[in-house]
Amino acid sequence: MSNALSTMREQGKKVKQSSDQIGQLTTKDKNDLLLAMREQLLKDTGTLLRENEKDIQAGMDNGLSTALIDRLRLSEERIEGMAQGFEQIASLEDPIGQMIDSWERPNGLQIQKIRVPLGVAGIIYEARPNVTADAAALCLKTGNAVFLRGSSSAYHSNKAIVSSIHDAMIRQGIPTDAVQLAEDTSREAASEMFTMNEYLDVLIPRGGAGLIQAVVKNSSIPVLETGVGNCHVYIDESAAREMAIEIAINAKTQRPSVCNAAETIVLHEKWASEHGYELIQALIDKDVEIRGDKNIQKLHDNVKEATEKDWSEEYLDLTVAMKTVQDTDEAITHIKQYGTGHSEAIVTENEQNKQAFLQQLDAAALYHNASTRFTDGFEFGFGAEIGISTQKLHARGPMGLEALTSSKYVVHGNGQIK
Amino acid sequence: MSNALSTMREQGKKVKQSSDQIGQLTTKDKNDLLLAMREQLLKDTGTLLRENEKDIQAGMDNGLSTALIDRLRLSEERIEGMAQGFEQIASLEDPIGQMIDSWERPNGLQIQKIRVPLGVAGIIYEARPNVTADAAALCLKTGNAVFLRGSSSAYHSNKAIVSSIHDAMIRQGIPTDAVQLAEDTSREAASEMFTMNEYLDVLIPRGGAGLIQAVVKNSSIPVLETGVGNCHVYIDESAAREMAIEIAINAKTQRPSVCNAAETIVLHEKWASEHGYELIQALIDKDVEIRGDKNIQKLHDNVKEATEKDWSEEYLDLTVAMKTVQDTDEAITHIKQYGTGHSEAIVTENEQNKQAFLQQLDAAALYHNASTRFTDGFEFGFGAEIGISTQKLHARGPMGLEALTSSKYVVHGNGQIK
Repeated sequence: MSNALSTMREQGKKVKQSSDQIGQLTTKDKNDLLLAMREQLLKDTGTLLRENEKDIQAGMDNGLSTALIDRLRLSEERIEGMAQGFEQIASLEDPIGQMIDSWERPNGLQIQKIRVPLGVAGIIYEARPNVTADAAALCLKTGNAVFLRGSSSAYHSNKAIVSSIHDAMIRQGIPTDAVQLAEDTSREAASEMFTMNEYLDVLIPRGGAGLIQAVVKNSSIPVLETGVGNCHVYIDESAAREMAIEIAINAKTQRPSVCNAAETIVLHEKWASEHGYELIQALIDKDVEIRGDKNIQKLHDNVKEATEKDWSEEYLDLTVAMKTVQDTDEAITHIKQYGTGHSEAIVTENEQNKQAFLQQLDAAALYHNASTRFTDGFEFGFGAEIGISTQKLHARGPMGLEALTSSKYVVHGNGQIK
Repeated sequence: MSNALSTMREQGKKVKQSSDQIGQLTTKDKNDLLLAMREQLLKDTGTLLRENEKDIQAGMDNGLSTALIDRLRLSEERIEGMAQGFEQIASLEDPIGQMIDSWERPNGLQIQKIRVPLGVAGIIYEARPNVTADAAALCLKTGNAVFLRGSSSAYHSNKAIVSSIHDAMIRQGIPTDAVQLAEDTSREAASEMFTMNEYLDVLIPRGGAGLIQAVVKNSSIPVLETGVGNCHVYIDESAAREMAIEIAINAKTQRPSVCNAAETIVLHEKWASEHGYELIQALIDKDVEIRGDKNIQKLHDNVKEATEKDWSEEYLDLTVAMKTVQDTDEAITHIKQYGTGHSEAIVTENEQNKQAFLQQLDAAALYHNASTRFTDGFEFGFGAEIGISTQKLHARGPMGLEALTSSKYVVHGNGQIK
């Protein structure tokens, strides 16, 4: 084993050994720690900005794109945002110790299902340093230790954030081993995490599709998969004109770079013939490029021809695919074929079509007369978001604190044997 | 790709394509199917016995052990057991479509969390042909299609069972593609299943530790891990003599071959000095071989010396490791070090020690004054058991029908945009 890999395993072992103590912290311990982390981070603003500058400089020397440099950059405002995040997470209800369920068996056994931490979460993420702060806080709140593997381009920033968190932990008498940042940021070291089953209970990739797929494909540790969204808005024959246009515009343009933004708008042909031009023009007014099928092209001069590839493309920018259908069934069939099971919306005043859409489609979130943009932990009222799960096991859709927990059964008897 | 592997993928594709239709079946459709399967299986008893005989004969020719031949063998009674299983599963409440939760957001969005099928379950299992019937029924009841990969030694038996199920499906107008038995029973073909992410939503290994670890290590599909149990019974200072002896005897001897049987009995040294001899003698009377630490050896002549290896051994037979401790803390430390997080019991009349044990230990099931043998889907009242999960994600402990389900959010709006 190379030095790098043995360092990863040593760090993994330390984080695992500390997890038991973290899991036993009281709600007050954890909230006091989060508030101490907030205070310390604000105090460390100068250091954080200095360390961040090293990453920025190296990034520019290495020719990183302006967009990546921007994501990497810390500012007083961004540091304050992270500190506020700590306070916000402190204010959330503690899920650990909650009794999820309880019942009595005919033989008198009292069974309780109690919420407990997962143990150790491994987080593999890309450039944004704020993920370091956010993931550490979410894990600590849920009694989990955390092994963070950020990208090499953000190493100095991440290290400074973890140092600040460690200082707060020391002040609160909590073992700093529970928040580990991988010292080795090589790809080889990240791959090593995939098989550290004895030290990690879950792996959570946060970043682009390439990163997520690499983790899903190669990890023998259970993964919380947050994935791509090829989201659809279907506008039915009976859809109210203004509501349909507002929802389509919002779903496509309010923040096109995120996974719950719409990528294809499907129109009932009758609605399209009445209001299609107006919708297309409204999209174009918002700088959206339209790629449509033949019927859509007939509605407006400014529509490019959609190819087969457009139906499955996650543009993540101001481009949209548009197609017409004869009825709700055809819309459902199209979405089943091309959707990724993230978020799908129908705009309709017809009860039967609404029911067909909501029952026959299977996705993390289905909407009637609302924008797909609401698929979000904060919008759902969870007060936090680990990510949006597109897998079906453990958690599906927006993940709040509960996604970082497991359960144990506690059974009270008075001498029962089988 | 070899022919074998392309056959696996073709079968995987078919089962995936059928899963949508299976997921939309009503509760009545599914229960009618299960009852039709019961009837058909009983009708096919003669065929099943004939086909099973081929496997038995081949097994004997290949020198399979008597124990394996016994597990492989069908009888009228065992076939009746499978048929009764179908009826029993039909009688259970249908989890699909249940509203798990619902709430309203300040913006008026109505959010519902609805229970849905997982999609397609892949089951990889060893010799017992009854798993074929059991797994198919559990999957169908929960609206899942199923891809079964049994062992080559049971191929004729498994094929006859699936044929019988198909006949019932045809009669009920349900696509037979939804229950596929892998035609290729090579290891290569089983490995192919590990990466069929586009067709399988979950993989469930059922069998020995070797099989389970191979699936966990190599699958890129989420796995429901059912694992080993190094279960402990800790008898505290204040434990009632008779209750403690009954629980220890039951946990060790009632069915030693299963994962929830006790493997180590930990005794408080004071309890041991008063009642240890009696417990050891009672175990010996049940043909149990005792491997003890020095203190245990002093109590009785018939105790072998325990080595380090004994503390982590899952004997699965009539052998037990025994050790003494000075207090509950030492017992907890031992169990944390050697336990596998399956089932742990404390026998005590002391409230404080009970609380320490139940709070500080983390396992799928923790017992106070009851036998570890109750960690079981039927004993918990689930009416069915997929297995006992020893992982922390998705399901932990005995898994009933709910473990084969996921959820989707259905959000009702009246024009909300973000």
